[in-house]
Amino acid sequence: MEAAWRARYGAAAPAAMPWNETIAGLLAHRSVRAYRGDPLAPGTLEALAAAAQSAPTSSNMQAWSLVAVTEAATKRELARLAAGQKHIEECPLFLVFLADLSRAERLAGREGVRLENLAYLETFLVAAFDAAFAAENALVAAESLGLSTVYIGALRNRPEAVAALLGLPGNSVALFGLCVGHADEPRVPNGVRPRLPQAAVVHCERYDAAKEADLVAAYDRTFAASPNGGPRGWTARVCDRFGPLAALAGRETLKGTLRRLGFPLA
Amino acid sequence: MEAAWRARYGAAAPAAMPWNETIAGLLAHRSVRAYRGDPLAPGTLEALAAAAQSAPTSSNMQAWSLVAVTEAATKRELARLAAGQKHIEECPLFLVFLADLSRAERLAGREGVRLENLAYLETFLVAAFDAAFAAENALVAAESLGLSTVYIGALRNRPEAVAALLGLPGNSVALFGLCVGHADEPRVPNGVRPRLPQAAVVHCERYDAAKEADLVAAYDRTFAASPNGGPRGWTARVCDRFGPLAALAGRETLKGTLRRLGFPLA
Repeated sequence: MEAAWRARYGAAAPAAMPWNETIAGLLAHRSVRAYRGDPLAPGTLEALAAAAQSAPTSSNMQAWSLVAVTEAATKRELARLAAGQKHIEECPLFLVFLADLSRAERLAGREGVRLENLAYLETFLVAAFDAAFAAENALVAAESLGLSTVYIGALRNRPEAVAALLGLPGNSVALFGLCVGHADEPRVPNGVRPRLPQAAVVHCERYDAAKEADLVAAYDRTFAASPNGGPRGWTARVCDRFGPLAALAGRETLKGTLRRLGFPLA
Repeated sequence: MEAAWRARYGAAAPAAMPWNETIAGLLAHRSVRAYRGDPLAPGTLEALAAAAQSAPTSSNMQAWSLVAVTEAATKRELARLAAGQKHIEECPLFLVFLADLSRAERLAGREGVRLENLAYLETFLVAAFDAAFAAENALVAAESLGLSTVYIGALRNRPEAVAALLGLPGNSVALFGLCVGHADEPRVPNGVRPRLPQAAVVHCERYDAAKEADLVAAYDRTFAASPNGGPRGWTARVCDRFGPLAALAGRETLKGTLRRLGFPLA
């Protein structure tokens, strides 16, 4: 517990804290971008999918789907569409998580019912949260089995091309991917990444940013000193990522793309 | 494993599948809406927050925050704002998860940098996914400790009132809440809820809805027969929830509300 806390926060753990194997697994998460080619154990996809489907889903609408990609040609094309991230090709299993309102639309079509609410931003968000909760459960399950993972947000660089490649129907969109496989340890440069101190993220009773500048400054030092951080610190990274439009890599057009894919976002 | 799979799918488990305590915990999830008043063990919030912060976050931007509410008056008001859900008052710990771009904005202000990208839908989604991955880790950690949980999407009914109550800065918004506490078992009517068959949600290599109508019909029967489903089946629920505008409970105005809270969603 002490070691896991120190890796995550660069500081000593609280004196008393509940702890178990599952929490230890959650704290040990690291993103892995180098995979060995060996296949997964039989039933791995079924186990990850069952974990994903067991996540909460708003009103039990289950407004998400998953495309499990193992074919080399498809992974190669997905890697190309996602800024050339080679780990998509390398991992034996690439999961593409969809916000999926198309299932509801097909079902209502069979009933002769019109689903007014699909047009709203709120309903798109319901589907997106469903997909995110499900994906995180799949990630936790995979890591509990000793597998490694990394989310691929760059699937949002070219959502229409991803939709065409995977045969997605209207009213569905690939939100992000998840690489799953055995880490190729010699090529994994980073371990557990330090995060902001809890006091900068967790507010008690009401939001309070009074001490934030000092907490962020301390984190900048922790981040710069860590082999899993970066020498310029965290503040510089935030400015780089959220500052210049070029950092959005085309995703500044996402709203229009979602509309063309069938989400009016009213 | 067999019992957990049957509870989730109303069907027999695959012949071979990896399995462990963490996966068993994920499959055992149920939403609980009745809590005893007893307090949580010391350090519970810290453990849940560490699990949450250990979730992946896009480019390590950590664009989310958490308000931990324990005060009775605040929980009472939050329950009122969220369609009168009494379990928000009952649970000893209510976690409010925020999409939070305000930290980045404050930090950039100190650096004299302008963050162009905060204005885009894409960046709002990055923050929303960060919050959702973090929340799901907190939920998994809580349930691994024998605690119960339920997400509260109805915080999106009145986001501006929630923001005022919790003192949220501009460029942040409460996306959903999470009740955490000990289930008051005699008042918990539902157990594990059956989900759609995997074949209706998990697509291999490409999206394929060819067998979906039959799979949904089978699920309608499973759902209607389960004490954790509903007698009218699932299709009727989807039509009720996504059909009439009234089911959105005011959330049809969410886009405008988000804009007023500082998210242009360009």
